Amino acid sequence: MVLLSVSTLYPSDVRSKEYAMLLTQADLTKKLDKKKYKSEMPRLQLRAGELQRALHEKGVPVIIVFEGWGASGKGTQINNLILSLDPRGFNVNLTKPPNEEEYMRPFLWRFWLKMPSAGRIAIFDRSWYRRVLNDRVEKNVPKDEWRRAFGEIESFERQITDDGAIVLKFFLHIGKKVQRKRFEALEENPATAWKVTKSDWRQNRRYDRYVTVINDMLKRASFPFAPWTVVEADDQRFASVKILKAVIAAMTAGLRRKRALRPPVLTGKIPRILDIVDLSASLSREEYEARLKERQARLRDLGYEIYRKRVPVIVVYEGWDAAGKGGNIRRLAQSLDPRGYEVVPVSAPNDVEKTHHYLWRFWRKVPKAGHITVFDRSWYGRVMVERVERFCSEAEWKRAYGEINEFEAQCADSGTVIVKFWLHIDRREQLSRFHQRENISYKRWKITGEDWRNRRKWDAYRAAVDEMLFRTGTKHAPWTVVEANNKLFARIKTIDTVIAAIERRL
Amino acid sequence: MVLLSVSTLYPSDVRSKEYAMLLTQADLTKKLDKKKYKSEMPRLQLRAGELQRALHEKGVPVIIVFEGWGASGKGTQINNLILSLDPRGFNVNLTKPPNEEEYMRPFLWRFWLKMPSAGRIAIFDRSWYRRVLNDRVEKNVPKDEWRRAFGEIESFERQITDDGAIVLKFFLHIGKKVQRKRFEALEENPATAWKVTKSDWRQNRRYDRYVTVINDMLKRASFPFAPWTVVEADDQRFASVKILKAVIAAMTAGLRRKRALRPPVLTGKIPRILDIVDLSASLSREEYEARLKERQARLRDLGYEIYRKRVPVIVVYEGWDAAGKGGNIRRLAQSLDPRGYEVVPVSAPNDVEKTHHYLWRFWRKVPKAGHITVFDRSWYGRVMVERVERFCSEAEWKRAYGEINEFEAQCADSGTVIVKFWLHIDRREQLSRFHQRENISYKRWKITGEDWRNRRKWDAYRAAVDEMLFRTGTKHAPWTVVEANNKLFARIKTIDTVIAAIERRL
Repeated sequence: MVLLSVSTLYPSDVRSKEYAMLLTQADLTKKLDKKKYKSEMPRLQLRAGELQRALHEKGVPVIIVFEGWGASGKGTQINNLILSLDPRGFNVNLTKPPNEEEYMRPFLWRFWLKMPSAGRIAIFDRSWYRRVLNDRVEKNVPKDEWRRAFGEIESFERQITDDGAIVLKFFLHIGKKVQRKRFEALEENPATAWKVTKSDWRQNRRYDRYVTVINDMLKRASFPFAPWTVVEADDQRFASVKILKAVIAAMTAGLRRKRALRPPVLTGKIPRILDIVDLSASLSREEYEARLKERQARLRDLGYEIYRKRVPVIVVYEGWDAAGKGGNIRRLAQSLDPRGYEVVPVSAPNDVEKTHHYLWRFWRKVPKAGHITVFDRSWYGRVMVERVERFCSEAEWKRAYGEINEFEAQCADSGTVIVKFWLHIDRREQLSRFHQRENISYKRWKITGEDWRNRRKWDAYRAAVDEMLFRTGTKHAPWTVVEANNKLFARIKTIDTVIAAIERRL
Repeated sequence: MVLLSVSTLYPSDVRSKEYAMLLTQADLTKKLDKKKYKSEMPRLQLRAGELQRALHEKGVPVIIVFEGWGASGKGTQINNLILSLDPRGFNVNLTKPPNEEEYMRPFLWRFWLKMPSAGRIAIFDRSWYRRVLNDRVEKNVPKDEWRRAFGEIESFERQITDDGAIVLKFFLHIGKKVQRKRFEALEENPATAWKVTKSDWRQNRRYDRYVTVINDMLKRASFPFAPWTVVEADDQRFASVKILKAVIAAMTAGLRRKRALRPPVLTGKIPRILDIVDLSASLSREEYEARLKERQARLRDLGYEIYRKRVPVIVVYEGWDAAGKGGNIRRLAQSLDPRGYEVVPVSAPNDVEKTHHYLWRFWRKVPKAGHITVFDRSWYGRVMVERVERFCSEAEWKRAYGEINEFEAQCADSGTVIVKFWLHIDRREQLSRFHQRENISYKRWKITGEDWRNRRKWDAYRAAVDEMLFRTGTKHAPWTVVEANNKLFARIKTIDTVIAAIERRL
């Protein structure tokens, strides 16, 4: 058996940071008088509306994040901003602490799901930065988690901006005294008193601690592709104009630049991994029957155990056409409680999926804690079929190795067991299976013209598979090449591998 | 002003009920010996697999519900059933008590979202029947709610089966003593002891009370289009074969019958409502400015109040092309806190939506308690554009009036305020607006060839609109025809109407 676990270091896309202004550098005395405000706003609003339409036509999504102190006027500013926008083209998302469904998945999961489709605007009233602000100050998560969150946020924002999205982040800054006065004013009015909570007052008391943490965030998370803008918000008019101008500038820039066009530099000589696979491995029917029964029973027990221990599991099936994925998945699934797993068949993206980042549809299917998701084909389509058939650009598939490693790392870091199979057969075996399928009536539906077309491109696919195994075999998500000329052997090997991976975790 | 509130009685699709066997009529001594079981199963399983493929190709969705006593073997039976199915073609959904997101919407919302797309199978381990079983026995909901739930379930199951789906419902029945023994056996084994809960034991103690409630459910909810099958489950083998046979029978029948083809009989002379609309209504710019400001302030206050009182609101905008929907919606939205509303632009269904019931995509957008959803066009497309352009059959659009009324009734019954606008202009006004749009550079994007094509079919649309206003103007969801030749007048009237509707509720 060949068990591959090629760990590659993806050459991370190092870019210099442009520090945002820190809170302690902001001049909160900045003001704008009413007259000037009234003369400036209409022009800016008209321009923002025009840009929204242009971005809509070009299919560029925009993400605008509003963070800020309690009572710094986030609601008011969002309202002001959207006055200039067509309400049919945006959504405002209010971010509360995660609910149970959200809590049982990687922390960015719920935000991936809310990413706008091509040409739409998503405004976030609070965002993924809760994790490194409130959760950090209030010690809701341990130190290593919020530190890791910065890395995850960086790759998240880089991935979506590389794909063409515009990301803007505003921090609304007010002074400690101003905040206290605003809380008091809200509390005096019976119609608004409910808006001020205990945790608001706690923030005011711990204002200085928050300043330190916010400044740290501004330093760590100001990326050239997704900068922070600190907005001096003691004066509402000044803040409104500053925000609108920043939005217009970012939209204008985003209209020009569309996607990251330069491919990343990939290094490392690609080993011809598939060459060394010994396809003679096989199993007799008797051995198979005996092993299968015993192994299925074991897997079933483990299924209950991961449910109780809340461990999520991802199993990825990739392989040549006719390598036996369907039958293999069925034997794996048979041993599991159907309430605990889902099989996700993956084919070409549909038209909604096409208007999103290619990883979006897979983020939606990330298993929740205690559940198993089996992907029948997966995100690896990006570096195989989409590469070979030129459905995406060279820059895109080359970038994908790193993006996929980041995606899997985030799942693994949140506790997910990841098992990935490449079901390998040789060309001759494929041919004989194709013929067999054509000749047996109840198997004929399995073979299509596309299978024959793919077969003709065997060598191109083979090179893509070798590179994929090399670049995306990581410690937390290793590939297992399964010798599948003998189906019985392949079925036992996949079940064994899944069992071993789960046992290692438990 | 014309305020329409035409209440129509939709001639409900009365069908006789075919009572399922009641629990008290079941013979729990039924058994199947191992030999017979082993000889029957393989043939049945092969057949079920073939039928799954055939239904997949034909695009027929299948919904299979499993209800039953605690420890009646639902998990085992579901497992057994899916052994014969391709795991890439089905999902198993475990139904727990609703979470917060679900609780804040009509109770069928979460099940609509889980309806399978064309050709897929959805298996429910517990289902919407929780509402009329556990919730009823445990008195989680008042009597009038579970009684109403039966009506809602009937229309839900009728709507999806009319659209071509197959619905099967199994109740797994075991005796009181058998249940007790199974609980004890589970508790003895440390690996399974966790499966038996306090509420399981409570069910055993209250067995007789449950029998009464279950029998009542079997009587009320056995519809010819979605029958209940009581499965004698003291003997597992007998139950497995009975279930598989019932699935095969239903799939075979479902392959033949695809959709409800006969249109319902619609009665009532359709009044020419649009004829009597006085389009001369207008408002001066000064009156408008003053009113708008005052009304927007009022609506903003109401927005906060419905948030606090957890009232959901649906606002539907329909109207002629160029009637001014966009500008109207913008004035309405401006007055609302963006965190409390969403504008949903509706165009032709995308390819995922096309594989579902036409109401599915609107169910997904039902507002949660305390939020406002504004639909810019809506489900009424079914009885307007889809009717006029023949995108659906006569049976389908005629059926839609009743389906829409049921949908809106379910929203209203769960507390939703529903406001529906028809923005009305005359043909001459439309022409002048089309010309104006073509001549003003920043408005040119608003006019397309399709607008001109629709205009040519004015009379057909007009007849469809009259019938729509007549058949779907209900007490809980009245239409308001808005005289929109004067845009300023129209904007104030819509805001006024929304305000009045919310005030009536509060």
